[in-house]
Amino acid sequence: MTSLGEKVLDLATRRGFLWQSFEIYGGVAGFYDLGPLGSLLKRNIVELWRKLFVKKHQEMVVEIETPVITPAVVFRASGHEEHFTDYAVQCTKCGRLYRADHLVQEALGIEAEGLTAEELSKLIRDHGIRCPACGGELGEVKKFLLLFTTHIGPYSPENLAYLRPEAAQGMFVNFKRVYELMRRKLPLGIAQVGRVARNEISPRQGPVRLREFTIMEIEFFYDPENPRADDYLQSLGSYRIRILTAEQRGRGEEKPIEVTPLEAYREGIVVSPWLSYWMAIASMFLELLGVPQSRMYFEEKMPSELAHYSKQTFDQIVLTDRFGKLEVSGHAYRHSYDLERHAKFSGADLYAIRQLAEPKEVKKLVVRVDKKRVLELFKDRARDVFRALASVSSEELANLVRSSTTPTISVGGVEIPRDVVKVEEAVERIHVEKFIPHVVEPSFGAERLLYIALEYAYSEDSDGRVVLRLPPYLAPIKAAVLPLLSREPMLSIAREVLKSLFEAGIESYLDASGSIGRRYARADEIGVPFAITIDHETLESRTVTIRDRDSRRQVRVPVDDVVRVLKLCVYEGRNLFELGYPPLNS
Amino acid sequence: MTSLGEKVLDLATRRGFLWQSFEIYGGVAGFYDLGPLGSLLKRNIVELWRKLFVKKHQEMVVEIETPVITPAVVFRASGHEEHFTDYAVQCTKCGRLYRADHLVQEALGIEAEGLTAEELSKLIRDHGIRCPACGGELGEVKKFLLLFTTHIGPYSPENLAYLRPEAAQGMFVNFKRVYELMRRKLPLGIAQVGRVARNEISPRQGPVRLREFTIMEIEFFYDPENPRADDYLQSLGSYRIRILTAEQRGRGEEKPIEVTPLEAYREGIVVSPWLSYWMAIASMFLELLGVPQSRMYFEEKMPSELAHYSKQTFDQIVLTDRFGKLEVSGHAYRHSYDLERHAKFSGADLYAIRQLAEPKEVKKLVVRVDKKRVLELFKDRARDVFRALASVSSEELANLVRSSTTPTISVGGVEIPRDVVKVEEAVERIHVEKFIPHVVEPSFGAERLLYIALEYAYSEDSDGRVVLRLPPYLAPIKAAVLPLLSREPMLSIAREVLKSLFEAGIESYLDASGSIGRRYARADEIGVPFAITIDHETLESRTVTIRDRDSRRQVRVPVDDVVRVLKLCVYEGRNLFELGYPPLNS
Repeated sequence: MTSLGEKVLDLATRRGFLWQSFEIYGGVAGFYDLGPLGSLLKRNIVELWRKLFVKKHQEMVVEIETPVITPAVVFRASGHEEHFTDYAVQCTKCGRLYRADHLVQEALGIEAEGLTAEELSKLIRDHGIRCPACGGELGEVKKFLLLFTTHIGPYSPENLAYLRPEAAQGMFVNFKRVYELMRRKLPLGIAQVGRVARNEISPRQGPVRLREFTIMEIEFFYDPENPRADDYLQSLGSYRIRILTAEQRGRGEEKPIEVTPLEAYREGIVVSPWLSYWMAIASMFLELLGVPQSRMYFEEKMPSELAHYSKQTFDQIVLTDRFGKLEVSGHAYRHSYDLERHAKFSGADLYAIRQLAEPKEVKKLVVRVDKKRVLELFKDRARDVFRALASVSSEELANLVRSSTTPTISVGGVEIPRDVVKVEEAVERIHVEKFIPHVVEPSFGAERLLYIALEYAYSEDSDGRVVLRLPPYLAPIKAAVLPLLSREPMLSIAREVLKSLFEAGIESYLDASGSIGRRYARADEIGVPFAITIDHETLESRTVTIRDRDSRRQVRVPVDDVVRVLKLCVYEGRNLFELGYPPLNS
Repeated sequence: MTSLGEKVLDLATRRGFLWQSFEIYGGVAGFYDLGPLGSLLKRNIVELWRKLFVKKHQEMVVEIETPVITPAVVFRASGHEEHFTDYAVQCTKCGRLYRADHLVQEALGIEAEGLTAEELSKLIRDHGIRCPACGGELGEVKKFLLLFTTHIGPYSPENLAYLRPEAAQGMFVNFKRVYELMRRKLPLGIAQVGRVARNEISPRQGPVRLREFTIMEIEFFYDPENPRADDYLQSLGSYRIRILTAEQRGRGEEKPIEVTPLEAYREGIVVSPWLSYWMAIASMFLELLGVPQSRMYFEEKMPSELAHYSKQTFDQIVLTDRFGKLEVSGHAYRHSYDLERHAKFSGADLYAIRQLAEPKEVKKLVVRVDKKRVLELFKDRARDVFRALASVSSEELANLVRSSTTPTISVGGVEIPRDVVKVEEAVERIHVEKFIPHVVEPSFGAERLLYIALEYAYSEDSDGRVVLRLPPYLAPIKAAVLPLLSREPMLSIAREVLKSLFEAGIESYLDASGSIGRRYARADEIGVPFAITIDHETLESRTVTIRDRDSRRQVRVPVDDVVRVLKLCVYEGRNLFELGYPPLNS
């Protein structure tokens, strides 16, 4: 028997949601095209994400767009050049390549994520793991950079660049500018939707492990001393999320706990209040994509599994038929890591400013150089001495003076009498202070969500009819226009209705071929929520029937109301049977 | 005095429409970020394009999404690997790089596009053109590939790939699949919006010549023997487009002719009817972006300027203050070039099928091999002979037999008696025939359009106030909510209004700082079409004022109507003053 997942992928390919890219050239692993229906569905998913994460949070979240091609220095600063790697192992006989952790995991049934090259090599040797394809011996486990590499400028092989594997760095390098634009208000979320690329070693999971995909990401910056998250956490009320903590996982437990995001934060399960908040929004988002709470949870990463930039990460897991536990989003507490690294590598000031509730007194070292004495003592060489003194910070100078056990100190190769430099402690009242904001990041892959939406919408009615039960706001096509007979005047009225739908920007099509039952079936299979039939009665009364996909019930509506009804039912969430139109006896 | 273009770019950077990417690392030429306002404006431009080009043409245009990273074979087949190049010249002293044609053009004031490397080198030598930066001598002019290069798979240096410089090839390689999905109907437009990358030699034109940008492209496939364009051309009525033909350009003329698209096609000015049709839609699109007809025209490329795939191309030119004549879209008649090349390189069948109005009789060569004789003559070697005969086509075999002057023919190294092969002519009745569709391509760059929209919206009122007169559907922010006083209860009502706008997905913000005049000015400068003021009267009657940006006039509207009014004025094109609300005396 065909599995649910296989049926979904078969339908998706056959009806043009997606297929492997470059098919006519034999296809390339890790690349998928979105067809006419897939591209519409994906756009609806992106718009839903935008609505929940950006538009409803406009007071603090803005969207930007930055390039895919990124100079290498950015990913050197971010640590990706060093850490964004996987372990690979090659068969010495047939040359096939494998991700070493996946191979070990499959061969031994153990968790291998986070193991070192040595550990993986040892496991392969000790257990005599061989090439799954040809049985050949495997080589040594080696590290591979998963960034796609290119060069900017045709003459410039030195201008190394990478294709971004995440949108995040586009937000980090722009933090200061956007912070200034938003009049220095925190919290501040910078969102982005765009393509990213990851040079996976041997992707074999169809449309859910891609070398190029669309990311939907927010870097959310806040003041760790004053996160201002309380109202937001409170606004979630008793909404609960399901979490499987690292501690539970360590004990081998598999049953997630259920907590409100506020509890999760207060009880220290989620260490950042905003991480907890956005996890709740992510949970609501997946529900709107058709996944019930009972089929998803947040799995905390074990310390050994954490990315180099993260202090705590939760993967949002959805249970699927085809791909088992599928990670649909990552929620990382990146704290101040990225901004600090970029400040260091670029020399730019990436601080935010905190207004202090009350002025604060801070101790400050004041270092005074007795210029007159320097001139007397050093004469012609005085300039060099001043320069040497200027080359070190006040703090370093103070330390030198304080720790010196001889009458002179050595500054920049020059010996200077200790008493030329006077160190005093002063107290300063400050009203603002600088700090590096902390960051949490909710990050989704659009194509995975597309697969999830399809799998969860797929259903077979008792009479065997396949129906994609996508909610109207997600459905790629909103209406099928069906003239009962493929002849005039029904055809003309159908074309008229279709045209009014096109003008209103409502995705729809006209289908006049085959029995009405077959046409309904074709529409149901791709999730068209409403079918508009032009029948004999239309010719009398200029009314059409509108059929609801899921209940198969119909109402009769004047031709001139069709666009209005569709808009209400698709975009305003109204119920077709509660708009006052007469239902049909069926 | 600052020029218009400089003012626009200053405003765009200052208010966060766009800025050079990777600023904190010194910036990288040819890369721009879109800030919060820029990203919204761009999205509105893309949506407008989608509405005109896709949604209103849903009966024949569908959108797909394909990867940026593309295996090299695709761009070998498309001819880009050979032709997508520019001529570059390097200064022998300072090492700076220049596009040779641009350099010659600037130095001598002549059209240099389409000249060969030799011609450009000669011009540089003959006129003693030197490095504009350091005065150094220039080297030889050389050809450079403008494709960004990468590799797919970390172990596989042989897996050369390019970043696509156009979306088009994604549509060509998928033509057959989409054609089948759309039940083999022509014409068929396959549209795509996505990132493309072009490794320009030394881009110096700010946001209008980018190394990475967003393309909006349609490959429109049709049967050249039955284009079915008549109704579409007729539907444009008397709408005229402005064209400067290659012939005119050759005569040095600069004044475009004005014709209807139907006339342009009938008179042979535009050689494909669909090219003409989409040019008209492009012209309407630019009008909706704020460019009057008088400031744009279509310039036909000279034969020497044509891309390798094109039989005729028109650039849509908009006159700008900052960048002079700016090409905002290209309209190429790619005829059957791309599909033919991909059929050849991939071996795939990329034909469409034409139902013949009447069955057609075609002559066909039937080649018969006398197998019995071959077995008698060749015995053990008969198998080799059969194999040799199978290795050539019927046509080739027939030609060999007919042109042979000896009693034998030589096939695959084997000498075979001529009379073993019998060639007969037969007549076949066919009802369908295969053909390669022709293609026209309208192609836009979104970031250029963004600049155009800004420059054409920029205005200074007589009192010096800067107003971006973007139409409401384009404006990045639709409403500013302004409590007259920054205190309760006005602030709470403002927040309530704002929240209802957020829930409706309408981009808006609350501004409570500074005088109301300053707040209007800040809103005008970024093109906010409607300002909602919470004033003293609000506290009495729960009404607010809504101010129209361009006329500065206001109406008074109940708080609970605000969302509805905004929706009508922004998305339905309704006039604020014709909704029945009382105007304010100002």
